[in-house]
Amino acid sequence: MLNSADVMPNWQAIIEEIAHEVGPLRIHGKIADYIPELGNVSSDAFGITVKLLNGDSYSTGDYTTNFSIQSISKVFSLTKAFSILEDELWNRVGKEPSGNPFNSLVQLERENGKPRNPFINAGAIVVADCVVSNTEDSLCNILRFIRELAHNDVINIDEGMLQSEKNYGHRNAALAHFMKSYNNIESAVDEVLDFYFGHCSIAMNCEDVARAFLFLANHGVDPISKKQYLTASQAKRINSLLLTCGTYDAAGDFAFRVGMPGKSGVGGGIVAIIPGLLSICVWSPGLDKYGNSLAGVKALELFTTKTGISIF
Amino acid sequence: MLNSADVMPNWQAIIEEIAHEVGPLRIHGKIADYIPELGNVSSDAFGITVKLLNGDSYSTGDYTTNFSIQSISKVFSLTKAFSILEDELWNRVGKEPSGNPFNSLVQLERENGKPRNPFINAGAIVVADCVVSNTEDSLCNILRFIRELAHNDVINIDEGMLQSEKNYGHRNAALAHFMKSYNNIESAVDEVLDFYFGHCSIAMNCEDVARAFLFLANHGVDPISKKQYLTASQAKRINSLLLTCGTYDAAGDFAFRVGMPGKSGVGGGIVAIIPGLLSICVWSPGLDKYGNSLAGVKALELFTTKTGISIF
Amino acid sequence: MLNSADVMPNWQAIIEEIAHEVGPLRIHGKIADYIPELGNVSSDAFGITVKLLNGDSYSTGDYTTNFSIQSISKVFSLTKAFSILEDELWNRVGKEPSGNPFNSLVQLERENGKPRNPFINAGAIVVADCVVSNTEDSLCNILRFIRELAHNDVINIDEGMLQSEKNYGHRNAALAHFMKSYNNIESAVDEVLDFYFGHCSIAMNCEDVARAFLFLANHGVDPISKKQYLTASQAKRINSLLLTCGTYDAAGDFAFRVGMPGKSGVGGGIVAIIPGLLSICVWSPGLDKYGNSLAGVKALELFTTKTGISIF
Amino acid sequence: MLNSADVMPNWQAIIEEIAHEVGPLRIHGKIADYIPELGNVSSDAFGITVKLLNGDSYSTGDYTTNFSIQSISKVFSLTKAFSILEDELWNRVGKEPSGNPFNSLVQLERENGKPRNPFINAGAIVVADCVVSNTEDSLCNILRFIRELAHNDVINIDEGMLQSEKNYGHRNAALAHFMKSYNNIESAVDEVLDFYFGHCSIAMNCEDVARAFLFLANHGVDPISKKQYLTASQAKRINSLLLTCGTYDAAGDFAFRVGMPGKSGVGGGIVAIIPGLLSICVWSPGLDKYGNSLAGVKALELFTTKTGISIF
Repeated sequence: MLNSADVMPNWQAIIEEIAHEVGPLRIHGKIADYIPELGNVSSDAFGITVKLLNGDSYSTGDYTTNFSIQSISKVFSLTKAFSILEDELWNRVGKEPSGNPFNSLVQLERENGKPRNPFINAGAIVVADCVVSNTEDSLCNILRFIRELAHNDVINIDEGMLQSEKNYGHRNAALAHFMKSYNNIESAVDEVLDFYFGHCSIAMNCEDVARAFLFLANHGVDPISKKQYLTASQAKRINSLLLTCGTYDAAGDFAFRVGMPGKSGVGGGIVAIIPGLLSICVWSPGLDKYGNSLAGVKALELFTTKTGISIF
Repeated sequence: MLNSADVMPNWQAIIEEIAHEVGPLRIHGKIADYIPELGNVSSDAFGITVKLLNGDSYSTGDYTTNFSIQSISKVFSLTKAFSILEDELWNRVGKEPSGNPFNSLVQLERENGKPRNPFINAGAIVVADCVVSNTEDSLCNILRFIRELAHNDVINIDEGMLQSEKNYGHRNAALAHFMKSYNNIESAVDEVLDFYFGHCSIAMNCEDVARAFLFLANHGVDPISKKQYLTASQAKRINSLLLTCGTYDAAGDFAFRVGMPGKSGVGGGIVAIIPGLLSICVWSPGLDKYGNSLAGVKALELFTTKTGISIF
Repeated sequence: MLNSADVMPNWQAIIEEIAHEVGPLRIHGKIADYIPELGNVSSDAFGITVKLLNGDSYSTGDYTTNFSIQSISKVFSLTKAFSILEDELWNRVGKEPSGNPFNSLVQLERENGKPRNPFINAGAIVVADCVVSNTEDSLCNILRFIRELAHNDVINIDEGMLQSEKNYGHRNAALAHFMKSYNNIESAVDEVLDFYFGHCSIAMNCEDVARAFLFLANHGVDPISKKQYLTASQAKRINSLLLTCGTYDAAGDFAFRVGMPGKSGVGGGIVAIIPGLLSICVWSPGLDKYGNSLAGVKALELFTTKTGISIF
Repeated sequence: MLNSADVMPNWQAIIEEIAHEVGPLRIHGKIADYIPELGNVSSDAFGITVKLLNGDSYSTGDYTTNFSIQSISKVFSLTKAFSILEDELWNRVGKEPSGNPFNSLVQLERENGKPRNPFINAGAIVVADCVVSNTEDSLCNILRFIRELAHNDVINIDEGMLQSEKNYGHRNAALAHFMKSYNNIESAVDEVLDFYFGHCSIAMNCEDVARAFLFLANHGVDPISKKQYLTASQAKRINSLLLTCGTYDAAGDFAFRVGMPGKSGVGGGIVAIIPGLLSICVWSPGLDKYGNSLAGVKALELFTTKTGISIF
């Protein structure tokens, strides 16, 4: 991937340039407000962290400020579910891009309650059910898992956010009941939703998220602790899913412009990886029309342009 | 990408192993017959060619037998249209996976006549219109272009196939008229369809196709002739489109299992590339339920497994 | 409507002929089993009652056997909601046939949570919410209302059925949550569903149902008690809704073959009216592929043929 | 139907009142302009004709001005096709309301090329194919048929309109090719479209249209000439189709407000019948958002209100 691999880029200089260049974009995004609690952030926040496999870390801006990880959490639960169920997971959730807005019921109905992929909400709810139905004390369990991946023991659920999610989560409740009617939810709907809303409400900062994704850039193995979370094949497969489905209805555009496997959340965070090299997390709360961080996507596009790094 | 890059694989040995292993699969695929002429092939044919950027070529099986390239042709017309219209092309065709069978009209209606991407039939018809509306003698022109890319002057249109396409092409005619009603087709529908059916009916063999795609593995430049067909950025973008949309409704599965940008045709051919390294074409006419060569997809999956090469 | 109005048909003879003729059909229908409790009926049951405006009543077969009225209840709640909200009701639910299976979510999503008509499940749930949000002790209230309309004080909810409905009602729960996400459900989802499942689980016989619908054949006024339930205009409008939307995805076929406003339930009951003349209820539990009583629809078709009565 | 049948209404007084009352509405409708030629009419035109079975005729306003009958023609071709193919017709076209805009392809794709009903464009094209494939010189033939029904030998095709239709008919061409791909069009697409556009381009006035529909109010028999065009059962069935599907996506609302079987065209004409009593044609070119004449629908609603006549 490193098209001119001999000389390493000056990472710190590059991310500072990027922060400078995307600065004006921050105010053009729209902060998510479908859940009131999401609206309580400063619209001009921007942070970025790059982590190399050897542990080197480069950051600038609001990289230590916590934000709501929202859908980024879906990668953690998917990792858990994939490691537990292995390929049986794919009997319950597909691997194809959805071609529809992330909360659409149409596709789900046409395919008898099997969501197209693990990153649309319906798919993430099925994945949540897989975790809930196969682990004890699931929400604490996934929180501990995330703390371990991020090497940060004070990561926690934002309780205000959690309450807000539950009050405004009727569409997700609809999805869960709908899939339950097709027998594609095993546990009780309320338990699955508690887990789902809970892990979406976790707050992390750019350093945490970049650290937590490093194992996906390293064949499923944490490059520092050497602990293996997925097989090399499983890690590769999650990366391919991130590339084709990780950014809602803009996955094609993201692959086109950025060219890295990545996952976004409506809290304004985006994390991406370059297999064999690095992970990167950027955060800016203003969103584009697809629900991805406006300044964040641009920052990642600049990152691949300036470094000449891309998987394509 | 080369996960253990120091030692080159023994390419010839690997493709011969693959040919042996997928052998039994050949008869399990279903030969396309929606156009009668497509049915006239031997179901146990199998050929494969790998071409490295330095010109080295490795082949086995029926790699010199011509087959109908069908949708593989869409990459050639896209290359032509992209080089002519540059980013204005994307005003007329999208960049997102379709999430629906390749001949669906639903998405098209929902999005006012703008196809989701250049590889679903509707998108390829718009691309065809872009070529027809901006070149003289378009079909001869694209044929000359393909001959040049493949470095083979005897490549030609299979006239029997062309006639067969036209007689059974009512669904494509419907798509063209439908998009014309949204003013997304400039030229006369008949002219656009003549070009479209014409370039789908071109016959090539594995060596031709692998050779013709080498420029996409080399930043848009033919690595032997040094002629530039696309900018590096454009080549990278076509590769990302191939990965997210190149194999119909199975693009996610293809990325998941194979992990290379690729394009398939219902004639049983599949071509894929590893940026910076190689192109590979495999042909076996029996198709899986998504319309991709059954033995061909398996062969490519084995290729990435055996070589340890993947973009992820 | 009475095409040869001078001489009244021999009603008793006609319904006995019909019962005889449709007899063999009874076993060809399929008893609904998506709710287990619905399966506990005798497949060869058949009953029919005709009630004239003057109170004359003609019956044959199992017309005193109770059956689960299921969706027939939707007409009672619609009557209640229409009389309370008047034309404001139509801001929350449409008046158009759905053109999709009765439990489809597609249309609902396309139209921002406003169901197409009051007889598809989504529409009936909105109507249920209208009743729940505007009456005290709603379920008892509607039960009293139905008893009054039918002039039978022992009509009741089948508690076994109610429990069964609740256990298998995930799709209806999905619909309710989905519409709540569009703010088209005012009360709590659980309260609305309790009412909805409750009134669907009421058990009545052919005589009860025919009696209860007589006011719709008489401009909204009970022809015996003279009590007015709807204005003449409202009654006419409910009749037009019954004709265009009363029999799921077979409303067109029902209008075509039978030509009377009518409502069916998956318990096997169908009720229809001839404005200015009569109501008729037929019950036979075996259903056709659209969820309407197979023998019941045929009986009504024979009824219009033999009597020469039709609104067309 | 005549709810107080003893005294006939003063028809002439009623239609003059109606013309007066809907006068201000005329300018609020929007004249169709998707075909340029349709735009060439005076927006304040308004005409109405009522014809009783005994031949009595009452008219006011611009009832002798020709207008483009557009989709009203679909009833004439349906009558022809139904009399030729009888119930075999329903193997090729359905009888259910569509629940989608009149030009939708979605439903068609879902149901394998069989249109939902004969009045959506796709259904009318199949009906046109039935006529074309089973009559000689089909367009002249249907024109003679319409002249005979209307008892007016100078009715003709508006050639300017026909040319305009053909130039802007890409969506209908798309529908025809699409259904041809499902083998639901027998003749050549061009022939079918020539017939279809041709009979839509016929110009008639209110008197002509009301006269031509009188047989549908009289069990399929012209009440004056006594010639039988359909059986009583067939006439009743076309009436039920007109009620459930005759006014595009507003059929439910039309049944709700007007309560008569009727058919509208984007030229601003609407025709309706009361079985056993009369036919009525109203014309005013300004359309509502569903494509039905705004003043025309209101006039028919007033007609049923003032006369107390309705099928419900």
